[in-house]
Amino acid sequence: MNTQGIAILGSTGSIGCNTLKVVESFADERFRVVALAAGQNVARLAEQVERHRPYTVAVEEEACAEQLLEELSKRKVAPPRVLTGEGGMVEVATHAAARTVVSATVGAVGFVPTLRALEAGKRVALANKETLVIAGELMTRAAKASGAELLPVDSEHNALHQCLRGERREEVRRLILTASGGPFRDKPRSAMERATVAEAMRHPTWRMGAKITIDSATLMNKGLEVIEAHWLFDFDADAIDIVVHPESVVHSMIELVDGSVIAQLGVTDMRHAIQYALTYPERHAQAALAPLDLTKLSALHFESPDTERFPCIALAYRALRAGGTLPAALNAANEEAVKAFLDGRIRLTDIPRVIERVMDAHETHAASSLYVVLDVDRRSRLEAAGEIARISEVSRSVA
Amino acid sequence: MNTQGIAILGSTGSIGCNTLKVVESFADERFRVVALAAGQNVARLAEQVERHRPYTVAVEEEACAEQLLEELSKRKVAPPRVLTGEGGMVEVATHAAARTVVSATVGAVGFVPTLRALEAGKRVALANKETLVIAGELMTRAAKASGAELLPVDSEHNALHQCLRGERREEVRRLILTASGGPFRDKPRSAMERATVAEAMRHPTWRMGAKITIDSATLMNKGLEVIEAHWLFDFDADAIDIVVHPESVVHSMIELVDGSVIAQLGVTDMRHAIQYALTYPERHAQAALAPLDLTKLSALHFESPDTERFPCIALAYRALRAGGTLPAALNAANEEAVKAFLDGRIRLTDIPRVIERVMDAHETHAASSLYVVLDVDRRSRLEAAGEIARISEVSRSVA
Repeated sequence: MNTQGIAILGSTGSIGCNTLKVVESFADERFRVVALAAGQNVARLAEQVERHRPYTVAVEEEACAEQLLEELSKRKVAPPRVLTGEGGMVEVATHAAARTVVSATVGAVGFVPTLRALEAGKRVALANKETLVIAGELMTRAAKASGAELLPVDSEHNALHQCLRGERREEVRRLILTASGGPFRDKPRSAMERATVAEAMRHPTWRMGAKITIDSATLMNKGLEVIEAHWLFDFDADAIDIVVHPESVVHSMIELVDGSVIAQLGVTDMRHAIQYALTYPERHAQAALAPLDLTKLSALHFESPDTERFPCIALAYRALRAGGTLPAALNAANEEAVKAFLDGRIRLTDIPRVIERVMDAHETHAASSLYVVLDVDRRSRLEAAGEIARISEVSRSVA
Repeated sequence: MNTQGIAILGSTGSIGCNTLKVVESFADERFRVVALAAGQNVARLAEQVERHRPYTVAVEEEACAEQLLEELSKRKVAPPRVLTGEGGMVEVATHAAARTVVSATVGAVGFVPTLRALEAGKRVALANKETLVIAGELMTRAAKASGAELLPVDSEHNALHQCLRGERREEVRRLILTASGGPFRDKPRSAMERATVAEAMRHPTWRMGAKITIDSATLMNKGLEVIEAHWLFDFDADAIDIVVHPESVVHSMIELVDGSVIAQLGVTDMRHAIQYALTYPERHAQAALAPLDLTKLSALHFESPDTERFPCIALAYRALRAGGTLPAALNAANEEAVKAFLDGRIRLTDIPRVIERVMDAHETHAASSLYVVLDVDRRSRLEAAGEIARISEVSRSVA
């Protein structure tokens, strides 16, 4: 058994911490954490450094680096190489000792480092779905060119990956992504109009970060996953469906041309998907990974998503069908709108409005390079900021 | 594309007729029916001969052969070669032009012909689960020696075969067979004591022949499937579980060592499994094969089987664990007991009693040859007949 070097982009977030738990659950020396990148959560990063002794870490800015060194000195831990900014993240993502890079930052910040990891031929365990939404073509092209593997950590795509293992691509009719439906699945539109941040954060089945939890409440998360699935598995928009499944036990499914459906089921614990991505093509038994006890479940339900109450789904399909830079515009507008909602500046139902306006104003062109895509990202955020300001202005004047 | 020759043992039964529907649904010349074996249903066999023009047919006895020739002459159909008895079935099962043999007779009658097909290196699409229950070791040994493929047509084992496609044997923790639970799933024991044949034949989800429908009511069908799964996939009794799933939408599942569960789902139409077995490793789109619409389903439920009300399950596990000739004794006793129930001679709840007595009286030894196994089959039927006579005597004297 060779020890596998692991680098993590976003080590202090929910996926990052769970990745470290998975690594720790292997008593043997299967994994070695060689590099970590985090944002500003220096306290947690210091703990992680103390425990895993990576060679390199990256933080958001110089002040964080100083804090980290101070914290490590207090703990009497020999400091690793400490870098900052995007350059630091790229060093982590391309660290010579890393065979696998877990890309688990939130939003567009992981974009460049993840691309560099793929170009360097690393296996990328991808939790940052925005990376593929913004620049799926660039990412998959880079992976193909270097021979890098791209393995999804999202539970839905991880499930699809498992379902597709034994099948021939041309014999798969469609992918079926399951969606919990979020906290507003069975609520009227009026409840969504006046939803507080706390209400929107009440995800029924998964415990996750703030951005993805709000995306789950608007079902934009599922829309982004449709785009992600397109790039990961090379299926057209028409061959990727969403079915609402409130219990989140079936993580996703595929339908074969002969009408057979293969599904992956499991408990709602991200460590399963993370371990799968780290150990693929092998599977390993771990005491920490609880098996599913079907007989202890209540009933499983499936229903069509309500596209009227959840317009984000249609926006995502529209962006995927148009292709080019439109998904990047959608993603940037969504990120800004979610932030504005979390800050109390707009309502939950304003999120799709902001995105639609930004998409309507966007002139779609080919996502031909990094520069082009990042420019669209930047300009769409400005556009979204304008829309957000206008909406919050109106609601303030109404109030 | 090479035309694939198909022989069917039990062509006029439920699986046999559905196999012919599958063959007919291929407009191209993918399949050619070359040989058919049936029992006494001469009228239906004549129709099948007229439509498919096989080279050879086998019927149960001389009188049937004469009737068939007469019927074909009326229809002005040139007669195929018509054979009788077990020898005729063996000719059908080993027909030179047959690449695939669909083994779909009911009970032990398909035993010898199926073994001969495997010895001849044919792909065997197996719907006759008793074949593996009686002589799993002989069958799988013959398949291994000749390189014959053994593909299950039972929807549950077909599902397991599909789930196992992408997985490594040593990374599969257990097989999970789903059971509808039959018509008495939620009925008290008293309802089973006084169950009429009509009540026991009311299967909730599948339309099948009489023997298998009664086996589904006692859950012996699932017990036999546990033994069948052992031989098909080489898992021990401890690694094969049963879960009751009344909707029969999930046809079966596997649990991997990492806690992930892969399930196969579909509509309850045997043609799916039959086509899968005929076209494997390919899958084909067919208008006649309805896809599953999850959003139109009611909820899916899962529960543990009630082994107190359904003692046949424990009997089957006991036979599998003991191995040797005990499963053959169990199967023979079950066939006789089911017949006696259908004839109104014993109650539904007497079936496990008959089987248990026969098993208790049986001296288990190695299932070392055809002769040994057939002898156990014969003797166990006699033993069962004695038990049945005793039970019906007692109930008559009580009444």
